[in-house]
Amino acid sequence: MTERDDPAAERPLGLERLVLFSDAVFAIAITLLVIDLRLPEDLEGPALPEALAAMWPQLLAYVLSFLVIGVNWMAHWRRYGCVERADERLAWLNLALLGCIALMPFPTSVLAVHGDEPAAVGLYVAVIALTGVASAAGWLYADRAGLLRPGLDARFVRLSALRGLSVPIVMVLSLPLLLVGPYVAMVSWLLIIPVQREIGRRLHAVAPDHA
Amino acid sequence: MTERDDPAAERPLGLERLVLFSDAVFAIAITLLVIDLRLPEDLEGPALPEALAAMWPQLLAYVLSFLVIGVNWMAHWRRYGCVERADERLAWLNLALLGCIALMPFPTSVLAVHGDEPAAVGLYVAVIALTGVASAAGWLYADRAGLLRPGLDARFVRLSALRGLSVPIVMVLSLPLLLVGPYVAMVSWLLIIPVQREIGRRLHAVAPDHA
Amino acid sequence: MTERDDPAAERPLGLERLVLFSDAVFAIAITLLVIDLRLPEDLEGPALPEALAAMWPQLLAYVLSFLVIGVNWMAHWRRYGCVERADERLAWLNLALLGCIALMPFPTSVLAVHGDEPAAVGLYVAVIALTGVASAAGWLYADRAGLLRPGLDARFVRLSALRGLSVPIVMVLSLPLLLVGPYVAMVSWLLIIPVQREIGRRLHAVAPDHA
Amino acid sequence: MTERDDPAAERPLGLERLVLFSDAVFAIAITLLVIDLRLPEDLEGPALPEALAAMWPQLLAYVLSFLVIGVNWMAHWRRYGCVERADERLAWLNLALLGCIALMPFPTSVLAVHGDEPAAVGLYVAVIALTGVASAAGWLYADRAGLLRPGLDARFVRLSALRGLSVPIVMVLSLPLLLVGPYVAMVSWLLIIPVQREIGRRLHAVAPDHA
Repeated sequence: MTERDDPAAERPLGLERLVLFSDAVFAIAITLLVIDLRLPEDLEGPALPEALAAMWPQLLAYVLSFLVIGVNWMAHWRRYGCVERADERLAWLNLALLGCIALMPFPTSVLAVHGDEPAAVGLYVAVIALTGVASAAGWLYADRAGLLRPGLDARFVRLSALRGLSVPIVMVLSLPLLLVGPYVAMVSWLLIIPVQREIGRRLHAVAPDHA
Repeated sequence: MTERDDPAAERPLGLERLVLFSDAVFAIAITLLVIDLRLPEDLEGPALPEALAAMWPQLLAYVLSFLVIGVNWMAHWRRYGCVERADERLAWLNLALLGCIALMPFPTSVLAVHGDEPAAVGLYVAVIALTGVASAAGWLYADRAGLLRPGLDARFVRLSALRGLSVPIVMVLSLPLLLVGPYVAMVSWLLIIPVQREIGRRLHAVAPDHA
Repeated sequence: MTERDDPAAERPLGLERLVLFSDAVFAIAITLLVIDLRLPEDLEGPALPEALAAMWPQLLAYVLSFLVIGVNWMAHWRRYGCVERADERLAWLNLALLGCIALMPFPTSVLAVHGDEPAAVGLYVAVIALTGVASAAGWLYADRAGLLRPGLDARFVRLSALRGLSVPIVMVLSLPLLLVGPYVAMVSWLLIIPVQREIGRRLHAVAPDHA
Repeated sequence: MTERDDPAAERPLGLERLVLFSDAVFAIAITLLVIDLRLPEDLEGPALPEALAAMWPQLLAYVLSFLVIGVNWMAHWRRYGCVERADERLAWLNLALLGCIALMPFPTSVLAVHGDEPAAVGLYVAVIALTGVASAAGWLYADRAGLLRPGLDARFVRLSALRGLSVPIVMVLSLPLLLVGPYVAMVSWLLIIPVQREIGRRLHAVAPDHA
């Protein structure tokens, strides 16, 4: 009966595969962002410096989405360091998160070309909000289903969920600023930095070695 | 003679590489789906919300194929959790499965643009059917060749094969509905959900920890 | 001084990383092949079945290159199952092999569109020949540098190199047939199957468990 | 309190994930380079040999960038063989390096089409310089934060940083040659070979088994 006590989803390879499959999706999504950085094909040689300079919105969108996917990978990396085993539902919730991550190149590409349109910013925020919700759902489910390492502080779990959700919360709160202008809304996202720092400080107070 | 008893294909790294190579192919195929989500390049700014709304068939195709590849990855993940070692034939059958998975972005892209054409739906179903057959072939071969962990219930092996095959079976059975209309056929695919749930229930009865 | 006896390139992670990095390159190259399977963008709906049928050369090129990369991955998988540790030169030779593998989507795409041109077949054969040479060079170097597991039969090492080289050898020998016609040359590649089978038979006689 | 002494970032999986995520990004970036190798779509058959011959600048850019990413992967492989554990800051510095690597296909594509323009060479050098700085920053931080294996020679750490930095240093020093001509600057990059060989020789003298 030992194989009954050691179901597929709980074997070490089970959690490892889930994590490495996620890493591959994160890595591909983050690398595909570059595909939108393209010069116009009919560019005349002498116009190259001007054409490169005119690409700053695309480059900004690349850096922004690289950070968004990077921050999500860091959260995934930190959180799955606390996960002890995986079950099927966690795999589905993780798949939902990966679906949002794999989608990121699309709103990024829309933002790169139409960054001055409220609809482009709204789409971008919507995908990031979905990502944050899927990420938090997986983390909170893992906690409730007893898949985390024992001994984790309950406040640590809640604060970690809050840190992840703070990105979409600030972004959704910025949406009314679209009425003033798309770039005003995007500048307000800088608020994410002090908010994350403050939550990080509290996390450190609760669990010095996990934060 | 110890190296004779420990051939390359049976070393732990052998199975691990096969699994992680598969994960990489699954991850890339699932992430490449996003490449077809593209706005028309000559889009005028004010038309952006309409253009985004008009993309719903592409988005639907993205979600559908993400689910198809995701379900296949979940099946691969569950099944290889029961595989103890790999041999060359299993590697070839797995390669055939990966060839189908890697092909998925093509019928998805056809479906996204020509979803109202029976030929597009037929091509999509054909690739999914091939995927299901290749996946079941690998699983049943692994069982027959004694590559699975000992102690697995024979009914578990058969029901697991059936769960995987239920997706292509429902889809192939839906093909006559193409005469009524492509979307009628696609809606009938929702039958997959109760069918999978019922097989999952029986799997759970047979092997509570593997299902 | 223990760290001196345990240089970076010889640590378990060293060989594992080299192998998993290779897997990722193989997986991406094999999955990128699908990008060339594209319908013409201005396709009228009713013409879809004809357009799909007219894609057979692209589909053939996809299957052919999938097999080429798949066979090379299988050889890599089998051979690195016999490698015990990696050094810097093996990493460079492996990188040269990966450079050829990563290049494969290009000659494949040329062959898909210009399969009736001798230059397209010639380019395809040239890249495969380079791949075979790089692959054999890494394997023979690993043998000479003592990086293989001890106890491997010298005939096994030679026959395994020959099996890998048989693909480019048959293809290069087919080049004069380009004068008769590109498809005649491509059909002659079917000779690879009996040649590989015969070498496989001899390999099995020399080392029953490694072949 | 054991979980406090074993924070997420220090668990073996933590370092392993960071390394394998990096491998995936390196592998995708190096494989995406091939996407720019494309024949003109309206090519007439008989012109194929000439069209292939005319692609030498793209092929040169492919080989050059393959080497650049390959050299960076080799450095990452060697260095993380000496890293014992990862913390959050190292993960961020590594992410900055990966952002530069993932960007490489863009300057490569510009160089392939506009290789005779100083702005294209300048952009290419700028991205490589950023890559070198990010790479060295991670390595030197890991040393200062005590994340490296104990017993490493301080000269080894410095020389290894210098070896990595020698690529961007030679390239930045070549920038004035752009006034003479872009290809003169690119030929001067061959100086990298003797410089790296000399540093490698000194590294070998300091730490025979790590160099």
